[in-house]
Amino acid sequence: MKVTVSRRAHFNAAHRLYRPDWSNEKNETVFGKCNNPNYHGHNYEMIVSVTGKINPETGYVIDVKVLKDLIKSEVEENLDHKNLNLEVPEFKNLNPTAENIAVWIYDKLRVVINDDLELKVTLYETPRNFVSYSGEQ
Amino acid sequence: MKVTVSRRAHFNAAHRLYRPDWSNEKNETVFGKCNNPNYHGHNYEMIVSVTGKINPETGYVIDVKVLKDLIKSEVEENLDHKNLNLEVPEFKNLNPTAENIAVWIYDKLRVVINDDLELKVTLYETPRNFVSYSGEQ
Amino acid sequence: MKVTVSRRAHFNAAHRLYRPDWSNEKNETVFGKCNNPNYHGHNYEMIVSVTGKINPETGYVIDVKVLKDLIKSEVEENLDHKNLNLEVPEFKNLNPTAENIAVWIYDKLRVVINDDLELKVTLYETPRNFVSYSGEQ
Amino acid sequence: MKVTVSRRAHFNAAHRLYRPDWSNEKNETVFGKCNNPNYHGHNYEMIVSVTGKINPETGYVIDVKVLKDLIKSEVEENLDHKNLNLEVPEFKNLNPTAENIAVWIYDKLRVVINDDLELKVTLYETPRNFVSYSGEQ
Amino acid sequence: MKVTVSRRAHFNAAHRLYRPDWSNEKNETVFGKCNNPNYHGHNYEMIVSVTGKINPETGYVIDVKVLKDLIKSEVEENLDHKNLNLEVPEFKNLNPTAENIAVWIYDKLRVVINDDLELKVTLYETPRNFVSYSGEQ
Amino acid sequence: MKVTVSRRAHFNAAHRLYRPDWSNEKNETVFGKCNNPNYHGHNYEMIVSVTGKINPETGYVIDVKVLKDLIKSEVEENLDHKNLNLEVPEFKNLNPTAENIAVWIYDKLRVVINDDLELKVTLYETPRNFVSYSGEQ
Repeated sequence: MKVTVSRRAHFNAAHRLYRPDWSNEKNETVFGKCNNPNYHGHNYEMIVSVTGKINPETGYVIDVKVLKDLIKSEVEENLDHKNLNLEVPEFKNLNPTAENIAVWIYDKLRVVINDDLELKVTLYETPRNFVSYSGEQ
Repeated sequence: MKVTVSRRAHFNAAHRLYRPDWSNEKNETVFGKCNNPNYHGHNYEMIVSVTGKINPETGYVIDVKVLKDLIKSEVEENLDHKNLNLEVPEFKNLNPTAENIAVWIYDKLRVVINDDLELKVTLYETPRNFVSYSGEQ
Repeated sequence: MKVTVSRRAHFNAAHRLYRPDWSNEKNETVFGKCNNPNYHGHNYEMIVSVTGKINPETGYVIDVKVLKDLIKSEVEENLDHKNLNLEVPEFKNLNPTAENIAVWIYDKLRVVINDDLELKVTLYETPRNFVSYSGEQ
Repeated sequence: MKVTVSRRAHFNAAHRLYRPDWSNEKNETVFGKCNNPNYHGHNYEMIVSVTGKINPETGYVIDVKVLKDLIKSEVEENLDHKNLNLEVPEFKNLNPTAENIAVWIYDKLRVVINDDLELKVTLYETPRNFVSYSGEQ
Repeated sequence: MKVTVSRRAHFNAAHRLYRPDWSNEKNETVFGKCNNPNYHGHNYEMIVSVTGKINPETGYVIDVKVLKDLIKSEVEENLDHKNLNLEVPEFKNLNPTAENIAVWIYDKLRVVINDDLELKVTLYETPRNFVSYSGEQ
Repeated sequence: MKVTVSRRAHFNAAHRLYRPDWSNEKNETVFGKCNNPNYHGHNYEMIVSVTGKINPETGYVIDVKVLKDLIKSEVEENLDHKNLNLEVPEFKNLNPTAENIAVWIYDKLRVVINDDLELKVTLYETPRNFVSYSGEQ
């Protein structure tokens, strides 16, 4: 039986939406108040979902304790209480939109989660705005 | 990378479940207290989800501000603080069940959202009852 | 030890804010779209809180099952799936604002809940708008 | 039009994760504090989702009242306020992990829900840990 | 300025409502299905609120990190994944109702929180049933 | 009858906890990762509660539309998508802890809300950490 196991976690971070290669005016037009050069921030909530067969020995698809620890080491340690633009190397030249952050989280977790498990990441930037990514091209 | 972007919104409305071509008894039997001729109402919460490729220039699939404005102009302006049976033309002869309202919202948004974006509408009639529709036939 | 016991419940209803003794224009100015003559509606959520001494025999201030049944018989049976203006006698000539509905609920429950228990009613008209009343004059 | 109708419900239960055929040490290593021999418990929240065509007569995929009653008779009556290991026959020799409970709920509901409706069960063990199953092998 | 600082936390536990000095029949009548001799369980959510003056040096009433650690050491370590009746000495002869558990939590925290800070404990047994206690006699 | 009317609102902001007159080491020791010199951020949720007599003419204590507009003009316009340390004059030399922000919000609203109405502000820095202030000294 194929079951999806999900774990909710969170981190707080500051960010700014802009492209260094655009003029201030263009950044302002496209990103509005999200382009504040002094940064703003969010309580990001994320749901990491892993799909696979139930291990008949344990009754687990994945031990949620293991999943929780992977989210901590791969995602929270790198993003929590950070300035995404300044302190996360991948966002030095990549706009830290919710879409791009979700892909970043997916990529980080994909390499540490067993290949026969499917992965999906849902990221809430606010309680009303959220995105999800499951590796589809 | 294909990502889904979701926006939560809401509206309040009154409605009544019934078919004008049925007898009172049959409406009562099938729709129970939802058939109250004086109407009852709900705080409808909806989640509109749009799936497509990330625009590499902006890092957006769709600007959430644009999505929010489309939900406002196409859905909220037509349904918020309205009596669905009396004031929304499509529901004059169509029962305003959660299912039919979700399809109505989908149809309104489908025409204003770019064709290469997939669309899904989730509609909460109460915190415990909700429906979703993504155009599948 | 004095402890507060709370129970969350809900009902759906239609209403309209207006005063029959005012002109349409004045009702429109004061109550805006809440004055829609065809009604609109809400999923009202309520929290009923009862404060008193723990009964040392049972460990209860009040049996929540009893509180749940009182909320059902006194409040839900009278308000759920109703049109407040047309079907609740007290609102024939009293504007069914959240404030007045909270007082109505308090008054209904006050007579069936033991006098040595304090009572408080919190009523959510939407997830963002709510009122509370504890009998204070 | 194919629409998904979902109903949220809940039950409270005690359980213990372990295999009677394993040593105490192995159970402790694999299941940690979830292996407490005196049991611990949860408020399980579940979402039951049913997908099918809208009945053009009623505007329903399934009457939510019917779905609510099926959840009550098949799931809540069997699991609510129960010790899953001791009082649910299937878990006498099957570890009551969230994964296995979700499959159990799916199997119970699958036989009473019409074959032309798809079924999915999501089960929250805590607000942060949840699983879902839709019959996929 | 006097400000209240609150921290939300949780634990999972099994319990049974009954008095060993009552007959089975009386326990059954008074506590219903909560008297299941095999236990049932809950995800208890709690809010611990501390009221006092803002320290002008730090801008804190209490460092939330300190409050979080006190809740962990005094409450979670003693109650999480436990059987309250069997493993918490105070509930051997005291019925573990939500009321009595809230008082227990208050008493544990009162001795480790500075005397010039007021304390209040809110305990959710389910999302719909909760109690609060602030030391009032 | 005295009723409390509450309105929930929110804003996103970046901040850093520190005192410019302390050494880096002391700021680090006292404020930990909240002292990140590159800032971090939050989705602040706030509840503004106003208590007073029901106006017998309208059935309102305060028109929630008016309250919503005051929160927008006094609070959201000043704090939303801002860096609190750099862009809000009062926090240039005052640590923007949740406690101090709640007092700031209270002070801003107190001057525009009628004197015969009591005021209380609750501010969520995260879903698990929140503070409240009602002008008590």
